[in-house]
Amino acid sequence: MVRNILLLGAGKSTSYLIDYFLEKSAAEKLHLTIGDLNPENIPSKIATHPQCTLIPLDIFNDVERKDAISKASIVVSMLPPRLHIMAAEDCIAFKKHLVTASYISDAIKKLDDQAKQAGLVFMNEVGLDPGIDHMSAMEVIDRIRAKGGKMLLFESFTGGLVAPESDDNLWNYKFTWNPRNVVIAGQGGAAKFIQEGTYKYIPYHRLFRRTEFLDVEGYGSFEAYANRDSLKYREAYGLQDVLTLYRGTMRRVGFSKAWNIFVQLGMTDDNYVVENSEGMSYRDFTNLFLPYSLTDSVELKLRHYLKIDQDDIFWGKLMELDLFNPNKTIPLKAATPAQMLQYILEDSWTLKDGEKDMIVMYHKFGYELEGKRKQIDANMVVLGESQSHTAMAKTVGLPVAMATLNILNGKITTPGVQIPISKEVYAPILSELKSYQINFNEFEVPYLGYNPDVVNS
Amino acid sequence: MVRNILLLGAGKSTSYLIDYFLEKSAAEKLHLTIGDLNPENIPSKIATHPQCTLIPLDIFNDVERKDAISKASIVVSMLPPRLHIMAAEDCIAFKKHLVTASYISDAIKKLDDQAKQAGLVFMNEVGLDPGIDHMSAMEVIDRIRAKGGKMLLFESFTGGLVAPESDDNLWNYKFTWNPRNVVIAGQGGAAKFIQEGTYKYIPYHRLFRRTEFLDVEGYGSFEAYANRDSLKYREAYGLQDVLTLYRGTMRRVGFSKAWNIFVQLGMTDDNYVVENSEGMSYRDFTNLFLPYSLTDSVELKLRHYLKIDQDDIFWGKLMELDLFNPNKTIPLKAATPAQMLQYILEDSWTLKDGEKDMIVMYHKFGYELEGKRKQIDANMVVLGESQSHTAMAKTVGLPVAMATLNILNGKITTPGVQIPISKEVYAPILSELKSYQINFNEFEVPYLGYNPDVVNS
Repeated sequence: MVRNILLLGAGKSTSYLIDYFLEKSAAEKLHLTIGDLNPENIPSKIATHPQCTLIPLDIFNDVERKDAISKASIVVSMLPPRLHIMAAEDCIAFKKHLVTASYISDAIKKLDDQAKQAGLVFMNEVGLDPGIDHMSAMEVIDRIRAKGGKMLLFESFTGGLVAPESDDNLWNYKFTWNPRNVVIAGQGGAAKFIQEGTYKYIPYHRLFRRTEFLDVEGYGSFEAYANRDSLKYREAYGLQDVLTLYRGTMRRVGFSKAWNIFVQLGMTDDNYVVENSEGMSYRDFTNLFLPYSLTDSVELKLRHYLKIDQDDIFWGKLMELDLFNPNKTIPLKAATPAQMLQYILEDSWTLKDGEKDMIVMYHKFGYELEGKRKQIDANMVVLGESQSHTAMAKTVGLPVAMATLNILNGKITTPGVQIPISKEVYAPILSELKSYQINFNEFEVPYLGYNPDVVNS
Repeated sequence: MVRNILLLGAGKSTSYLIDYFLEKSAAEKLHLTIGDLNPENIPSKIATHPQCTLIPLDIFNDVERKDAISKASIVVSMLPPRLHIMAAEDCIAFKKHLVTASYISDAIKKLDDQAKQAGLVFMNEVGLDPGIDHMSAMEVIDRIRAKGGKMLLFESFTGGLVAPESDDNLWNYKFTWNPRNVVIAGQGGAAKFIQEGTYKYIPYHRLFRRTEFLDVEGYGSFEAYANRDSLKYREAYGLQDVLTLYRGTMRRVGFSKAWNIFVQLGMTDDNYVVENSEGMSYRDFTNLFLPYSLTDSVELKLRHYLKIDQDDIFWGKLMELDLFNPNKTIPLKAATPAQMLQYILEDSWTLKDGEKDMIVMYHKFGYELEGKRKQIDANMVVLGESQSHTAMAKTVGLPVAMATLNILNGKITTPGVQIPISKEVYAPILSELKSYQINFNEFEVPYLGYNPDVVNS
């Protein structure tokens, strides 16, 4: 009997996910129904596949949504996170399993009891980050524990970056995912983590000045700044007693120090609207955040304000973005500084035809075994193959697809709202990901208890 | 016929206010009823005055509150700002005038129509700041306009400081008012103002590095940082077309640069609770915001983090606060960093017996008259007389008292929710304040269009 997979939303992270289902459609007896607001945008190669049906679907249309979900064997939602709940409630009503790559929202969490009673698997956070980070971390943590080891330290870092072959600007950065998330990253409160048993707090305006360095063989040096809440998965991972718990975002070395210029100026603020934003030049935008002067140029004021030497590489980074251009204008009406900055950055940092992205993940596991302190470092690099088949789409889509098939095939059976941290879930997926060249390199390294390669200034 | 003034709340800013009413009670036929939660704390000199009645009054007790208000000729609320509305609604019901020293809240604003229909004066913002600032500014602005001048610039600064004779610490600062407001000053959004026709925005973490210098003859130099919304009274003052509009808070020179250390560290954050705050030492509190190190001291880490030289006066300021003391502890449970910092600061910055405070206000008025650009600077200094009779209590309480009496005597008649910006209101009050040594010195100075004495770094 053919199993009908309903995919909600065919956005940019679904290319590998769709390919996976269609490639397996014959062997696994799958039919894929793609419900999307604009199904006409889906490539004809997919649209004409015999085991694929496209349906126009507005998630806010109750009739369309309920009809599609009622006919599915399992539902995969790749919609924007806040919309999952609309599908999730129908999944409870029609008794369908649900898979998403998003963080568990409070609304979804509330369905846990109902999902359990109905015997439904509601698998969330099974993309890249969250997703592969959970699975690859728990695989090592469980292995250390199985040997009798006691966890002391866990640090985890992920970055969505530009592939080395397409890395041609001074920032070593291009937008490979949602630019808005990059511009407002770290806002909304102090970053919180634990180092050697001590709580540490970093305010937003210092976040990009407290980075760690990380080396990945064959790919050079990276840096990482702290995520807002490193303690989020402390209970889920069973790490209540570790001395060091830190999660961060990876960039190429030097990015954060330069990004800090925008933070210091106030350009990343998303909480107020700039007067007369529409048609404002890049130069006037920059000048909004600098003191008034009758005589001094915007350039000199910025250099002096942030104490940037004339021969500093920072300066080149700012010039590259055309930040002082009086002729380029921002067309946004009633925009916040963050929205205006995003517009300026997209002007420079958008991937061009043929350019490729790269995903990097780095974990550190410190533990005590037989009285000795040890450490395992593990890292993963995935390169994009084309503009549609990005490393982001691959690392987000494949684990979602594999989890879906494993649920259909009865390999994942524990019901309820969950994340992929049990062996039942992660072991087969991590194993299968290796055949797609998504795998971690592990190294035994001396235990240090904290990263000494820290920039404190 | 005796007029019955009901004073709600006999807190620390009411000493001069009460004295004023009682001194005038015979000549003006006044009786003062003081409703307070703890009337037993009121000095016996006041309590035994023949024209004074003390009543225990809980503002949340509808019977007590309505009874007291119904018997009054006019109500003066010196309660915490959020409680005014409870009195205000009864004032509408019982047709009583109302006077407060607080900013007009949205709730109070909504009573405007009802107050007007009932012919009631609801006078707000008639203390110091807001209060004397409105009145003294409008007096000069109206005078410039009467001569045919066109306003080009308005800057206004106020500071609640320690009197020179009691100024004995390296910060040249002690708490003379609500310490919490000092610790969280400037938070909640970027500061916004206009300089020479250009909008300017300063993010919180740069606020204390963009100060202006101001000199007051006989009192030396001061600095000022920007208030959050300098444009608040643009319409009320009729300054829609001015090129420069800036409001700020005054401190002694050097305060802001040192205060910036707390901001940079994240110690002023009031948005999250520190883990295990209760019993934490001053030293451990400081270390929360510094990177982990196996070997380096908290002192060295802070110096390096904020690049403070060993011989920098900053360092002395931090030592004076005992910020690295491992033995002094903070007793606060589930406290925010701002609350913990406030505790540490109160340890050093509380006024001791016999110490006195000082109020400083500084205005700049730029204008064009007969084709020429001109400027008037005006400043006021008021010194405290004793611990109960502070400069703050004097400058807040006296204008409130005078406005109250002028309403009673029919000198202020325009009804509605208002602030003291009409000549009917400010002229007699400013004139009477002079007899209490509250007056402004005015100087004609060259028009500059902006303050060149600006610290931009």
